[in-house]
Amino acid sequence: MPQRDATDSFPLTIGEIPSFCPACGKPVEERVLEEDHRPRLVCPEGHVTWRNPRLVVGTLPVRSGRVYLARRAIEPALGRWGNPSGFLEVGEAVQEGARRETEEETELRVEVGRLVGVYSRPHAGIVTIVFEADVVGGRPEPAAETSEVRDFGPDEIPWEDLAFSTVESALRDWVASQPGRGPTFEPELYVEGDPE
Amino acid sequence: MPQRDATDSFPLTIGEIPSFCPACGKPVEERVLEEDHRPRLVCPEGHVTWRNPRLVVGTLPVRSGRVYLARRAIEPALGRWGNPSGFLEVGEAVQEGARRETEEETELRVEVGRLVGVYSRPHAGIVTIVFEADVVGGRPEPAAETSEVRDFGPDEIPWEDLAFSTVESALRDWVASQPGRGPTFEPELYVEGDPE
Repeated sequence: MPQRDATDSFPLTIGEIPSFCPACGKPVEERVLEEDHRPRLVCPEGHVTWRNPRLVVGTLPVRSGRVYLARRAIEPALGRWGNPSGFLEVGEAVQEGARRETEEETELRVEVGRLVGVYSRPHAGIVTIVFEADVVGGRPEPAAETSEVRDFGPDEIPWEDLAFSTVESALRDWVASQPGRGPTFEPELYVEGDPE
Repeated sequence: MPQRDATDSFPLTIGEIPSFCPACGKPVEERVLEEDHRPRLVCPEGHVTWRNPRLVVGTLPVRSGRVYLARRAIEPALGRWGNPSGFLEVGEAVQEGARRETEEETELRVEVGRLVGVYSRPHAGIVTIVFEADVVGGRPEPAAETSEVRDFGPDEIPWEDLAFSTVESALRDWVASQPGRGPTFEPELYVEGDPE
């Protein structure tokens, strides 16, 4: 891993290409740094603005072999079903962020368990980490960003009405891991033309 | 996951707190946004500068039951042993980034395989994803950031001389997964007082 001096580097993630240096406010321009393999954004003061993919963390909340999904009340994918997930915050471990997002979006209390999978969407600059979680309390209720929360058995997943390819990939991996099921789907590295 | 308008939001990751808006170069200040749960950095134009953890990806390159490690030729942890790893780039899937870093740091050609684990260091704002990888070519040689590359059997891991807590966690999980071994160590969510 290349050394990055914390005092003069400001890592940026996905989104618009930044135009100004977060350290000094001066304009940035692309430059290839010594021993680096792609252009970076550098300001006249020499501060490097790093761009990095963002991390989304979420759960598949399970009780009695059924998984809870939430219908989205916001864009993108308004009205479609997704598992609770959201951007990891600085200062959080991945399991902590996954539990927080689950409680925010479904009002379910969960204990985060085994890793279901890690799913990349390189063109969106997003990596999603999904855990299985045991529902240990709360009641499934819509929250600020969701309009409906309900549980689905492995044979009831609304495959045609899911919000994102990562939701579909995680649910396929989860269904394949259920007793009496095999891995009937090939793992997908990522899906081209993803809607988000 | 909260909606973030790509046209006026600039996600930032770990490092120094940014002082200026990457979109317009004006100073940012902390403000709590509607329905949000922690303060964000906002400029007078209303652009939000998001800060997100950074993602490190790496492999444990294995051949004939032995794992290759590289001695670091750079700070931090100069002279200590680590598995090949580095920051994921925008546009890469996690497996692609892990393979690139492995080839850059060890000159080994690998096929990335099963996930070994996901390790959080919340205080550093870093999440590390480690895969096992099959060595399929190349020759183990030090590269720009490494001074020595060699292989270790499960009983030969230089536990006292490893670079980071994430290296230790990944190697412990890998050793525990070897034939005839059990999970002799408790999984660590993260380690306080991590050197990096």
